[in-house]
Amino acid sequence: MIQTAKRLEGIGEYYFSQKLREIDQLNKAGKQIISLGIGSPDLPPHPDVIKVLQEESAHPHVHSYQSYKGSPILRKAISEWYQKWYEVNLNPDSEILPLIGSKEGIMHICMTYLNEGDKALIPNPGYPTYNSAVRLSGAMPLTYQLRAAQDWHPDLNELNALDLTGVKLMFINYPHMPTGQLPIPGKLQQLVDWCNEKKILLVHDNPYSFILNEHPFSLLSLKNAKSTVIELNSLSKSLNMAGWRVGLIAADENHINQILRFKSNMDSGMFLPVQLAAAKALTLDKDWYAGLNEIYAQRRMKVFELLDQLNCSYSTGQAGMFVWAKVNDEKGTDHQLGKGGAMSDTILYEANVFITPGGIFGNAGKDYIRVSLCATEEKISESISRIKRSALPATHISVASS
Amino acid sequence: MIQTAKRLEGIGEYYFSQKLREIDQLNKAGKQIISLGIGSPDLPPHPDVIKVLQEESAHPHVHSYQSYKGSPILRKAISEWYQKWYEVNLNPDSEILPLIGSKEGIMHICMTYLNEGDKALIPNPGYPTYNSAVRLSGAMPLTYQLRAAQDWHPDLNELNALDLTGVKLMFINYPHMPTGQLPIPGKLQQLVDWCNEKKILLVHDNPYSFILNEHPFSLLSLKNAKSTVIELNSLSKSLNMAGWRVGLIAADENHINQILRFKSNMDSGMFLPVQLAAAKALTLDKDWYAGLNEIYAQRRMKVFELLDQLNCSYSTGQAGMFVWAKVNDEKGTDHQLGKGGAMSDTILYEANVFITPGGIFGNAGKDYIRVSLCATEEKISESISRIKRSALPATHISVASS
Repeated sequence: MIQTAKRLEGIGEYYFSQKLREIDQLNKAGKQIISLGIGSPDLPPHPDVIKVLQEESAHPHVHSYQSYKGSPILRKAISEWYQKWYEVNLNPDSEILPLIGSKEGIMHICMTYLNEGDKALIPNPGYPTYNSAVRLSGAMPLTYQLRAAQDWHPDLNELNALDLTGVKLMFINYPHMPTGQLPIPGKLQQLVDWCNEKKILLVHDNPYSFILNEHPFSLLSLKNAKSTVIELNSLSKSLNMAGWRVGLIAADENHINQILRFKSNMDSGMFLPVQLAAAKALTLDKDWYAGLNEIYAQRRMKVFELLDQLNCSYSTGQAGMFVWAKVNDEKGTDHQLGKGGAMSDTILYEANVFITPGGIFGNAGKDYIRVSLCATEEKISESISRIKRSALPATHISVASS
Repeated sequence: MIQTAKRLEGIGEYYFSQKLREIDQLNKAGKQIISLGIGSPDLPPHPDVIKVLQEESAHPHVHSYQSYKGSPILRKAISEWYQKWYEVNLNPDSEILPLIGSKEGIMHICMTYLNEGDKALIPNPGYPTYNSAVRLSGAMPLTYQLRAAQDWHPDLNELNALDLTGVKLMFINYPHMPTGQLPIPGKLQQLVDWCNEKKILLVHDNPYSFILNEHPFSLLSLKNAKSTVIELNSLSKSLNMAGWRVGLIAADENHINQILRFKSNMDSGMFLPVQLAAAKALTLDKDWYAGLNEIYAQRRMKVFELLDQLNCSYSTGQAGMFVWAKVNDEKGTDHQLGKGGAMSDTILYEANVFITPGGIFGNAGKDYIRVSLCATEEKISESISRIKRSALPATHISVASS
């Protein structure tokens, strides 16, 4: 066997890649697991979006390779979407790069900017892909702590206390996953200024801004942002197109061109009918987002009920498609993924419900669980019933409801 | 500005990414360039393939994230396709990894196996992406020469004469692009044996096997291949789905799992309706391929006529969607891309026809041009007329036809 590269040391298969296989096996063994794990929208896109895909794919000349920079129609739609919802001006010809999902953008950015031995600041808790992408590029992740007491925003004093030698990149993400924290523009302006001063690229991952949030926010709307900010965005969550793989980078022309040097050697443009359908999706008006959020708000009420049942505490003002909740009992402090890990295991094996342990987002998440809103109210209700019926240890069940 | 990573030094934007922009600008300036450059099929997929996409995309539950390993339906179709056409057995559960186009697979493989300082053997002439992917992974490309006199196959004596220290990978590609050389199984068996002995992973890029070729060949059909061969394949060329982005890796289970460790941290599964349409495409029978090849054979006759006009020589037995041809006049030996580069420039600027200079595939291609078959007979005829009408220097025009 040929040895794999050093960059893969300690990089496992992505957590959910493994976990979904385990759930698949449990299902094959007759369990009917309800998954409240992944943030994968279960609802379809708007019918007009699907119609564009269907109609465009019937045309004879849409099947060939597409430009590495994406269709001008999609870039224009993205530019107009940013103007309308975020009040940010982007030149569609030079400041937008469509992606095959924003996840790949995280790797493109790391590969474009990070050398072996460089460092990148990543949030704890945070999306695990920041960590793995930084390491796969040969660089080292340098964790910064987020705390509930500081609204899950980075603390500049703490950042300044770190050894910042070799730090070239910093990842942030608001509305924040997994905590559901909304962006606080004042704090983020200070961070933008700090990154400008320290010459650190600030990569903002922004896929959740329309979900359970009245005020979509782009980091590019802040003062002096374009010189230091690269923003990732996605149609996955807010337009129910997760499986379609459509995302984008919004940034200054220089950053776009540098990332394109990497990306154009790695893949090719997206399927044109998908790009045109995505352009259609971006024109949807506020009724679309309102309708979507009505459903998520209903589900969230049910999830609060489930969390009460589990004696967890949570903020009711979270944005995004999850509820982040603190485990209050003391069981499982010795579990690899903490109390949240213990609770997740118990619920999976005793009640056939999968809930993500907060510890997979970093050790700051060990006391937490994260419940997805991407399941019907019926499924969430059924999860509550299963938990009530299950042989869950009494310590996991709140006194009030047991 | 934040400096880009060292790995990007000397890596330009992909040649065609730049060239297509130049052609776009020429077109905007009123030229109507005929492109005989890229191998991007201009014909649509089979109507049944499009129908599957249209029907499947109407279902409500096909829009969410897909498994990193691809749909079991697609993997089964790939397995059956390999059995039917290549007589190779692949376990659909463990020996197949669907890709968002085979181009990304080249990078995935390099990132999975190559460390900074490692080496990978790449063909000269050959597909430029092997070179850039190796370098982007931090490793060094080590070029091996292909020569017409040796049927454009690697010479084992020459390989043995190289310093092979640190060589972990070797790229090959038959039918070969850009020369159109068909695979010679006897020679390739020797190469497989050599790679097994030297513990070098042999990556075979196999997108052209159905085009103008009666005998599709997989390197995995050779003895002891699975221990050392990773094969890339694609639906782009043979099923007219270049823009759809569907490719695959076929390999031993261990190799698949290692590559998945990288890939699952970088992107996500493909859009399910695209996967199901691809599965449909793989079931097409020999009438599909025969119909396609009839069209390409007609076009090839026209391209031969064009090449005669340019006083180029070529083998008539080439496979794949290009004709590789040697420039016989002596003009342009001082051009950066050789005589082929000079001829390509002249034809572009004087006759508004774009033909790829062979030099972009390595210096062994400097005396050559490569003409794509992905244009209608009408367009090829029009190209011939334009060349005849143009102010092309007499040295570029054959005596017989001018």
